[in-house]
Amino acid sequence: MEKVIPRTLSGFMELLPADQINMEKIKRILQDTYSSYGFYPLDTPVIESSEVLLAKGGGDTEKQIYRFAKGDSNLALRFDLTVPLAKYVALHYNDLQFPFKRYQIGKVYRGERSQRGRFREFYQADIDIIGDGALDIADDAEVPAIIYQVFQKLGITEFQFHINNRKILNGFYVMNGMSSKAGEIMRAIDKIDKIGPVMVRKILTEDIGMYTQKADTVLDFMSIKGNKEEVFERLSKFRGMNAQFDEGLDELIIVSNYLKSYGVPEEFYEIDLSIARGLDYYTGTVYETTLKKHPEIGSVCSGGRYDNLAEFYTDKQLPGVGLSIGLTRLFYILSEQKMFSEANIASPCDVLVLPMGECNSEAIKISKILRDAGIRTSVYLEKKKWKQKLSYANKMNVPYSLILGENEISKGIVSIKDMKTGEQVSTKLQDGIMLIKCGIEQKNVEKIVCDA
Amino acid sequence: MEKVIPRTLSGFMELLPADQINMEKIKRILQDTYSSYGFYPLDTPVIESSEVLLAKGGGDTEKQIYRFAKGDSNLALRFDLTVPLAKYVALHYNDLQFPFKRYQIGKVYRGERSQRGRFREFYQADIDIIGDGALDIADDAEVPAIIYQVFQKLGITEFQFHINNRKILNGFYVMNGMSSKAGEIMRAIDKIDKIGPVMVRKILTEDIGMYTQKADTVLDFMSIKGNKEEVFERLSKFRGMNAQFDEGLDELIIVSNYLKSYGVPEEFYEIDLSIARGLDYYTGTVYETTLKKHPEIGSVCSGGRYDNLAEFYTDKQLPGVGLSIGLTRLFYILSEQKMFSEANIASPCDVLVLPMGECNSEAIKISKILRDAGIRTSVYLEKKKWKQKLSYANKMNVPYSLILGENEISKGIVSIKDMKTGEQVSTKLQDGIMLIKCGIEQKNVEKIVCDA
Repeated sequence: MEKVIPRTLSGFMELLPADQINMEKIKRILQDTYSSYGFYPLDTPVIESSEVLLAKGGGDTEKQIYRFAKGDSNLALRFDLTVPLAKYVALHYNDLQFPFKRYQIGKVYRGERSQRGRFREFYQADIDIIGDGALDIADDAEVPAIIYQVFQKLGITEFQFHINNRKILNGFYVMNGMSSKAGEIMRAIDKIDKIGPVMVRKILTEDIGMYTQKADTVLDFMSIKGNKEEVFERLSKFRGMNAQFDEGLDELIIVSNYLKSYGVPEEFYEIDLSIARGLDYYTGTVYETTLKKHPEIGSVCSGGRYDNLAEFYTDKQLPGVGLSIGLTRLFYILSEQKMFSEANIASPCDVLVLPMGECNSEAIKISKILRDAGIRTSVYLEKKKWKQKLSYANKMNVPYSLILGENEISKGIVSIKDMKTGEQVSTKLQDGIMLIKCGIEQKNVEKIVCDA
Repeated sequence: MEKVIPRTLSGFMELLPADQINMEKIKRILQDTYSSYGFYPLDTPVIESSEVLLAKGGGDTEKQIYRFAKGDSNLALRFDLTVPLAKYVALHYNDLQFPFKRYQIGKVYRGERSQRGRFREFYQADIDIIGDGALDIADDAEVPAIIYQVFQKLGITEFQFHINNRKILNGFYVMNGMSSKAGEIMRAIDKIDKIGPVMVRKILTEDIGMYTQKADTVLDFMSIKGNKEEVFERLSKFRGMNAQFDEGLDELIIVSNYLKSYGVPEEFYEIDLSIARGLDYYTGTVYETTLKKHPEIGSVCSGGRYDNLAEFYTDKQLPGVGLSIGLTRLFYILSEQKMFSEANIASPCDVLVLPMGECNSEAIKISKILRDAGIRTSVYLEKKKWKQKLSYANKMNVPYSLILGENEISKGIVSIKDMKTGEQVSTKLQDGIMLIKCGIEQKNVEKIVCDA
């Protein structure tokens, strides 16, 4: 028969089994942490009506969207999880309680040009809190506090939140008579990490046509850095000139205080006035998150506060605040930078039962007892040579093998081999179970990522 | 602004938050059970190249497949998880260890005519064991044994596996000189549960043109039922006439014996000679699974043994055995038949902290302590009237509220309200934590489904 060459489309992540175990571990940490803050899980279709999905217009992403017809329907694959959330909340408004806290971990699709580390199908992991008419500013601290917990549990410790408030920026531009150019200026400022302040100054004066003095005013303002007290003091000097500015500063101070209540240490976040997150969606607090040792990667978790989640679907005012982790990209970076902890074992089971000779039935019975004791247990049922059986156990990174032959069965014992040390002990089954459980517990203390 | 009417495409399941919690609970039981048997998780792209996905030809499903072009690529959405598995194993053959045990829970797409209980986007939850060249018959018992565990853990107790072996059927048709008509006969027999034996007899004689006596031979054979010993004894009378028949019977007996070793009680499975599962894929053991109280639904979990997983992609002989749960459909049935246990609480958190007056910061600090103690905790941060706060807690089905006002803060205590009984106690935080943990533990004993 003529064969079709098996292949996976470029830009689509397909992991080998051990990597997939790590991905699942990460997903579960995300799910468990989001749940621990009382967020509902949410799942929406991958396919939506094009009309609904593109109600807002797709902006820059529009040409990347996968669209197609089926029968009379004009369909599209979701390109983020925010638009489906907006649709969901508008559609099911009467069945939801507000504030509505939800997380969603799902695949989204963008037909980007394929390049290293860029994916056409990728997971986003979003959390959002949606209010009905109003939403307390404390929620703006809860969202990054949850991400802080997620990163702690993953073992990612070398990261920093960059927090700003769009009202501060808007107010600043108004008080300096620059609001008509605010969009252009923000786009220029957005490049400051990549091209440096000298080049940005050039764009501001030459391309945008600002007076040198005004450009410097902007650059001086954006460079306000330091510990929170210093930043807030320097910003407070602008107070009284613009109401929006003052409101934004108040919010930033409140968020900073609430972050303390949520247990986020000060060194994990800084006020960064250069963060704007686009032009037309976010209206208050905005966040980006960088890995300290890999600033070149850019933000691995971004988001902010918005006034109107679903204005394209409903007249209801639905403010919200959210953060999104680009999970597939984060996973790619963790792999590429070899940040998975060496102590983390990506094995599909805790113990592999290896029957010697004709004792599959006994092996199966013992595997049931192990499973009932909470041990993930696989049985090697194939008729292969002993060497091949052991090689299978080694290649799967199994921490323990349980060896069962006629000798063991007649004596009512089992032999347990620690596959890392090679140590082998013969013992009663119940003692063997304790041995394995203790060993697994110790190994499970290790976090999946080690970025130290 | 003109609004777009928010809607979800028909045939696409989109659950309300409480239902979604139940769906996630079910998914997790599946994941945990599959993992406990040492199965790797697997995730493959939703989109594949059409050429790869349709290598075999789509058969009846071909016209239901979502296909579209993007750039130069001819793409299709996966319509099951078996073809992606075949591609995966052929593509990554050198990186896999065999037997390769994997589970995959993922969405698949079929543009069927929309009707009640039929979905165009639906989850399948598959387990398969793939061998390299050979695969032991014991694996044919492991796969249903895992599904038995899954159903036990879900609380589904009123179900039955129907097991057959294609070699028995093939052998039977050969020994009766019916092999040329085997396909037609099997299709007719497949309808026996729906239209009854009299109608099937009519099809066999009138449509297929069998002699009355031969039709009765088939119907007599298919009606062999009873306990395993009886069935095996009646079948053993056909021994010696066809080697394939004998092999199939041997396999069926071995599988039945191994099921005992795996701890599957006899009453949960029966030999059912009318099960064939299509014509061209399965080659040995075949399974269907029915809910005893809802036979009209048909099989909720089906599969079998196949000789050649990936013959369209590789010359390698890759036999396997697998079972697939139609998860979205199963969920739909559990909902529709009101089989979710009343004791099962679909709440996003264990406790909702309700601050009275201006004490969000204290509430947030306490929520952190609760979370650190393993309690899923949400804080109500909005400025609303007390009545609205309590109503929120009730509507979300929260088991406990923790009420915190100036009175409690000054005394260093908290008030904990059991939202079901209405009972409220004031206590030290640490005692409150114990109270909540014990309560939650008791509630979590309940299984999600109750079909008794």
